[in-house]
Amino acid sequence: MITPRTPSGVLELLPGEQVAFQRMLEAIRAGYERFGFLPIETPVFERSDVLLTKTGGETERQVYFVQSTGALEKVRDGAAEDAAYPELALRFDLTVPLARYVAEHEHQLTFPFRRYQMQRVYRGERPQRGRFREFYQCDVDIVGKDELSVRHDAECPAVIHTIFTDLAIGPFTIQINNRKLLRGFYEDLGIVDPDRQAAVLREVDKLDKRGEDHLRTTLTGEGFGLPADVVEQILAFVQVRSDGHEDALARLAAVEAASGGSGALAEGVAELREVLTLVRALGVPESDYRLNFSIARGLDYYTGTVYETTLDEHPQIGSICSGGRYDNLAGQYTRSRLPGVGISIGLSRLFWQLREAGLVEASAGESTVQVLVPQVDAALLDDQLALASQLRHGGINTEAVLDGGKLGKQLRYADRAGIRFVAILGPQEVADGTVTLKDLRRQDQFTVARDEVVSALRVELAQPLV
Amino acid sequence: MITPRTPSGVLELLPGEQVAFQRMLEAIRAGYERFGFLPIETPVFERSDVLLTKTGGETERQVYFVQSTGALEKVRDGAAEDAAYPELALRFDLTVPLARYVAEHEHQLTFPFRRYQMQRVYRGERPQRGRFREFYQCDVDIVGKDELSVRHDAECPAVIHTIFTDLAIGPFTIQINNRKLLRGFYEDLGIVDPDRQAAVLREVDKLDKRGEDHLRTTLTGEGFGLPADVVEQILAFVQVRSDGHEDALARLAAVEAASGGSGALAEGVAELREVLTLVRALGVPESDYRLNFSIARGLDYYTGTVYETTLDEHPQIGSICSGGRYDNLAGQYTRSRLPGVGISIGLSRLFWQLREAGLVEASAGESTVQVLVPQVDAALLDDQLALASQLRHGGINTEAVLDGGKLGKQLRYADRAGIRFVAILGPQEVADGTVTLKDLRRQDQFTVARDEVVSALRVELAQPLV
Repeated sequence: MITPRTPSGVLELLPGEQVAFQRMLEAIRAGYERFGFLPIETPVFERSDVLLTKTGGETERQVYFVQSTGALEKVRDGAAEDAAYPELALRFDLTVPLARYVAEHEHQLTFPFRRYQMQRVYRGERPQRGRFREFYQCDVDIVGKDELSVRHDAECPAVIHTIFTDLAIGPFTIQINNRKLLRGFYEDLGIVDPDRQAAVLREVDKLDKRGEDHLRTTLTGEGFGLPADVVEQILAFVQVRSDGHEDALARLAAVEAASGGSGALAEGVAELREVLTLVRALGVPESDYRLNFSIARGLDYYTGTVYETTLDEHPQIGSICSGGRYDNLAGQYTRSRLPGVGISIGLSRLFWQLREAGLVEASAGESTVQVLVPQVDAALLDDQLALASQLRHGGINTEAVLDGGKLGKQLRYADRAGIRFVAILGPQEVADGTVTLKDLRRQDQFTVARDEVVSALRVELAQPLV
Repeated sequence: MITPRTPSGVLELLPGEQVAFQRMLEAIRAGYERFGFLPIETPVFERSDVLLTKTGGETERQVYFVQSTGALEKVRDGAAEDAAYPELALRFDLTVPLARYVAEHEHQLTFPFRRYQMQRVYRGERPQRGRFREFYQCDVDIVGKDELSVRHDAECPAVIHTIFTDLAIGPFTIQINNRKLLRGFYEDLGIVDPDRQAAVLREVDKLDKRGEDHLRTTLTGEGFGLPADVVEQILAFVQVRSDGHEDALARLAAVEAASGGSGALAEGVAELREVLTLVRALGVPESDYRLNFSIARGLDYYTGTVYETTLDEHPQIGSICSGGRYDNLAGQYTRSRLPGVGISIGLSRLFWQLREAGLVEASAGESTVQVLVPQVDAALLDDQLALASQLRHGGINTEAVLDGGKLGKQLRYADRAGIRFVAILGPQEVADGTVTLKDLRRQDQFTVARDEVVSALRVELAQPLV
């Protein structure tokens, strides 16, 4: 006998939780489709040579390689060719597969290419609380050929706003910044070398954790040697948060006025101005987005607008949806220049965090099953099944009890399982041509004519429970 | 520069095809939920010791093993412990993960446990046309604890009927048989030893390919040595197909009357009688199911009712949905007896075959995008975005063109992309407070008031095109 064990570092859910997770996936999919994005899916593994062109260091160490039994035996027997890696590896994000997909199918796609992709990705991390080796990413990207208007950068906050409103997990704020503005700001301060800028940004990123004094000491210290007044300017800059649309525009005007004339800064300011204006035109309420000059995101990858999204009442969760603008998606695979902008929701981690914070009450949730048809009397089995069929043909998710047992026990099962309605068909109901409907949520009961049971339940199910 | 290449043996789709595939997945999911099944998902990999308990031979050779870079380096350096296999392996079906899941979470589940699972599985097959290394399986199972009424065996044909009616890929027939009836029939003929029975069944399974004469020669020949009249009885038996419900019951009565009194045969007949009766009670038209005594399925696994489903007009495709009843799901993981019944749809292979047969016109399909809002005049950008927002808030999947270009080109894009409606907002429409709607499918055009555009489109989209 083998002990049945889930591998460590994965989020495996019980059915009630899976229903809640599935609803979130569907809300994200609906949001992406609402904005005109098309679905794609890529295989779980890519050719190792294709997957590992751009990576190095930590990511490469975390890659999972895939080998069939045959290939493995060749390695064992020393008969394998001396390749650096096995032939296949599991994707570690959805960006590299997107780059490969767009480059490979370039001539069959229409640009700007608007795709969404919701699949699991894999990282061989050391398992620890809240870190997963397998997790869902839900990505959306707009990829242009040769060029892509900055207007598209305004679509991402609008998508985020639609999805997180639908998910109803509390108030949130979309934090917006621009890498060109950041670059220009540091250039104005005389920090021009990209590596040096990146090093400063890494220190600034630790501000929340280590505090202002530590940052002052570090940046004025031996490694960086920045003048104290420059460090104060940095500290003031990264703490800029706008409050409302007009304030955001005013803060952009202020940073531009204070600038030493960096072209990059001016460009970043102009882009942010356009993005903010269109975000408002797309109907995002101004309370839900803000400028935040501390947001930098992936330093190697993003080149313009960058986004993070935080839950106002749960800042400790960190960003629940991030992304940004990049200059060239697939330079490692094609000579075509493919600029793009996109965002990603790490749903497994988000779900786990919401559950930890008590915001997903999965076990008490509603089942996908809407009606239980209990077995009241084994002699009425044909009638019971005909009722179940009638409900299913009417589009209602219906479970029929086929194993018998006491009615009270069947009702308790429905209640525990989160099935809201029970449709009872006993000898009396059969004689009368009726069905007795029990609403377990409202603790209510009523009798309807047999041929009206579908329409009656549809009306009930369409009303929110409050 | 690395050539972007999809690994061999996977089905990667262009967006238009992916939309068609996604619709099939959603129809299957809706069908499973309609019958009261709950979703679960399991990780793509399992612990190798858990995955490989029951397998052997061909399956084991086809397993993909998974190793992180670190583990791989240890193997290279000879520092790895001398384990038979790497720690993790990709699932090769959804049955073993279900067994592990049910055994592991046994005390948190309610039985009968009704679950559906739609995920990809992996087999290290040699790539060839129509054979995939990665493919979707869409499984549904009802698992009992200690016992499970044979009534549940009638649910599978009802689910199959609902789903393949919804998929609208042409008329189909659900072929039903019973392993106990098969066993009893061969026992009556004096073929009692299970291995000998299995060997005969394997030969019978080749009947379609090799013909009757070859079967006669083989079964009367040296290896089997069956009397000629026994072989004729086998030939007559395996060619039994019922035509309608009453004929099915009559054929069961006939096989029972002809029986030498095998208990297994009588049991199989009784089960089939009950299953057929309930299949009819569940509303499956009698033209869509039939007895077929040639169906045997997995010889080691299934113990009672077995199913296959064929497309009437495309018999060459073979079974598109198969399954059956098993005695004990998870004997390798738990002492609890877990009998069950289930079916599986191999969607990647089915989709590929339908495409090959010209039954999926993916590229000409309808997009998930329902309306394109073209950019008529850059000066009207804010109005254009407000219209897009209005449509999206109204639940309509909307793409807004943000890069400009000639209107004619934008219309051609919508047409090619399978977007049915175009909502045009030019200076005249803005002045009049209207929107011009073009229906590219019906080649029709009409103007509606701006505040009625959502309801007008909803009415149009709710009407089928035919």
